[in-house]
Amino acid sequence: MAGDELGSLRRTRYSADVSAGADGERAVVMGWVASVRGHGAISFMTVRDRDGDVQVVAKAGSCPDGVRERIAGLKVHSSVAVSGTVRASPRSPSGAEVVPDEIRVFSEAARTPPFEPAAVTVKNIDTRLEARHIDLRRRPLQHVFRARSAVLRAVREHLYGEGFTEVSTPKMISSATEGGAALFSIFYYDRGAFLAQSPQLYKEQLTMSFEKVFEIAPIFRAEPSRTARHLSEAISIDVEEAFVDYADAMDGAERVVGAARGAAARYAGANAGSGLAVPEMPAGGIPRRAYGDVVDAARDAGAGVEWGDDLHPSALRKAGLEGFYFIKDWPAGPKPFYVKPGGPGGPRASESFDLMFGDLEISSGSTRISGRAELEERMRNKGMDVGDFAHHLGAFDYGVPPHAGFGIGLERLMMALTGTANIRDASFYPRDADRLAP
Amino acid sequence: MAGDELGSLRRTRYSADVSAGADGERAVVMGWVASVRGHGAISFMTVRDRDGDVQVVAKAGSCPDGVRERIAGLKVHSSVAVSGTVRASPRSPSGAEVVPDEIRVFSEAARTPPFEPAAVTVKNIDTRLEARHIDLRRRPLQHVFRARSAVLRAVREHLYGEGFTEVSTPKMISSATEGGAALFSIFYYDRGAFLAQSPQLYKEQLTMSFEKVFEIAPIFRAEPSRTARHLSEAISIDVEEAFVDYADAMDGAERVVGAARGAAARYAGANAGSGLAVPEMPAGGIPRRAYGDVVDAARDAGAGVEWGDDLHPSALRKAGLEGFYFIKDWPAGPKPFYVKPGGPGGPRASESFDLMFGDLEISSGSTRISGRAELEERMRNKGMDVGDFAHHLGAFDYGVPPHAGFGIGLERLMMALTGTANIRDASFYPRDADRLAP
Repeated sequence: MAGDELGSLRRTRYSADVSAGADGERAVVMGWVASVRGHGAISFMTVRDRDGDVQVVAKAGSCPDGVRERIAGLKVHSSVAVSGTVRASPRSPSGAEVVPDEIRVFSEAARTPPFEPAAVTVKNIDTRLEARHIDLRRRPLQHVFRARSAVLRAVREHLYGEGFTEVSTPKMISSATEGGAALFSIFYYDRGAFLAQSPQLYKEQLTMSFEKVFEIAPIFRAEPSRTARHLSEAISIDVEEAFVDYADAMDGAERVVGAARGAAARYAGANAGSGLAVPEMPAGGIPRRAYGDVVDAARDAGAGVEWGDDLHPSALRKAGLEGFYFIKDWPAGPKPFYVKPGGPGGPRASESFDLMFGDLEISSGSTRISGRAELEERMRNKGMDVGDFAHHLGAFDYGVPPHAGFGIGLERLMMALTGTANIRDASFYPRDADRLAP
Repeated sequence: MAGDELGSLRRTRYSADVSAGADGERAVVMGWVASVRGHGAISFMTVRDRDGDVQVVAKAGSCPDGVRERIAGLKVHSSVAVSGTVRASPRSPSGAEVVPDEIRVFSEAARTPPFEPAAVTVKNIDTRLEARHIDLRRRPLQHVFRARSAVLRAVREHLYGEGFTEVSTPKMISSATEGGAALFSIFYYDRGAFLAQSPQLYKEQLTMSFEKVFEIAPIFRAEPSRTARHLSEAISIDVEEAFVDYADAMDGAERVVGAARGAAARYAGANAGSGLAVPEMPAGGIPRRAYGDVVDAARDAGAGVEWGDDLHPSALRKAGLEGFYFIKDWPAGPKPFYVKPGGPGGPRASESFDLMFGDLEISSGSTRISGRAELEERMRNKGMDVGDFAHHLGAFDYGVPPHAGFGIGLERLMMALTGTANIRDASFYPRDADRLAP
């Protein structure tokens, strides 16, 4: 069907450009059939593109019969081009419609879809994920992912503006970053290797040469957690800086989240009806609560938690913590080997923080150890093999500066910024212990 | 040594801010010792930071003896902070120096380095890669990677400006993208899986929902090629668009490369002496040569090549091809299954192109097949198991649009834009068949 090829035909208008002001002008629109209704001598079709919907009205006498009949027989999801004339029309939500004189059907939908492209909610997330290619056409997801793109743009521009250099660190690594658990194994030519669960050691090394670095890239965690907030593959916003400590890093993380929230709010403002629930930033800045104080508050509220324990979501909820806040000065014991112990929380604490949104951890950061002897001691205390880290430790012979940094989980940040309940809907093609496809 | 901790001390000036105009003002500079010379009652130290070098002059009588003696004993690469007073000085390249009254040595270099931080060239790349943490301090690499960061920023801003949505596609996949060769195998919980060698099928699917998408992310290729232009892990700039063909994609790739070159040229212009060899864009646009014509030219120049053969660098050099140019309309046979056959090159050709720089392939793109039956036929002809691609093929039941796109290898692009000879120097921590560390 040569008549249904793209050939030299090109879109001349997006849906947003089909308006009453263009009455009488020519238009070629392209997109997907979102709905079709036929009433004998008249067929109505909604074509959905990136920007929204176009009404196509094919009426006997004002368009060729073949075009009208072809439209009446189309299934939703088919991809089409319509050439015709814009006509102002108060019946159309956009104030205009297209009267077609030609239609090309590039790809006719072969099956009845498992759910409607216009559906706001679809109950079973697995049904959606199995047909993710069309699930992502649904407006609620379109808004989350377009906002995500805007957030990434704003975050990077913010970091460039602060003088950070963008870096890329290897994802195939020879040794375990944070102690060996939760790593995916790979075959690297003739030997074994791992997928990086964070760029931690590399970004620390890069402060020796670039001082202020960031990377936004995938991380891989073989945690068989089946929750609404864990993924096996996620995007991490990693930031690291020389000559600063964790208090500076908290300032930096707060500015990054502020830039991200600003972008999400602008997106929601420009897209009425997006349904995105963008939270406010706390007046006066993101509060910084000491770990010990949070433990006390949770215990006072009835949570069975004491100093040294992890703070589970239930304890945080009992303590009544909401919105964005930091928890700082965590116990040193459970922290990764590179986190600097001590600081204002006392000798058993560490110069560390988590950035929370309600009971959801968004980010984690710390001052890092910059002395080789101290780092090796921490590794041995954790039962790690110092020899596995010869290259990394070698860097410490050449003036590793005092440094600090943080990582932000992009999908969790987007959950917080858009009101998305399941982290799988902040990832285009989520990966978890049960899902490796599509 | 509490006196050598960062504590509350913070940098107040980068090296660029230590200038004659600041004569008499206070300064805290931080960085790494690049050189030290002592002449009895006077010690000179160069401290290198992100922006450049600061001269520190410690003279008996004008600074404490302990500070002068400590400076005299420092090894290069040590990380330090110097507090003192800026003094205009015609002897200093920057026109000013710092007279210190305090020095903190955060981390003293423990060993004599394998090469000088000021070295412009170091002969053995493996020596450098083994000590990559300090190799990256060398100015030639600093310029390449800072230019890289500027290029990434410009490329993304260009694509956002053209209405593209940034996406992320999974790197852990269940089936082979392009036919099964050159894949790294991984253990994914209880089953086998692969690392994605490109986001090809996902970015194609995403044109169904976002129309114009891009991703800049790592790709993984288990090709045991030991050349100066292959990596096992690289960064790919992937772009895909609905309702266009490969001619539009060539236009798009040309604009992306133009944005990248502009950023590299601006970086080189702002950094005199960077040594970056930024090429010009061809006047009148990047030439588009048909594959058949290039074969003829190479054969006329004595290369043993005929229609259907791959075009090796030696043949391209014989044909006298230089700078940026496209080779389009490649034979369909060797092309991946998703490349659309036919087009202006005839029935045995395909709607495909490579973007070259001299004999270096920078990018590859094509019109894609958008019909399920044709795609399945191509897969079967290539001996692929259609059943492995059930999810991807399922998308074609729901109106896959005509679409086209391309991928640009970032490291190769940076080789072209900076005159870097070995691809390993366009990657922070390169990976090849022999190298998995650091």
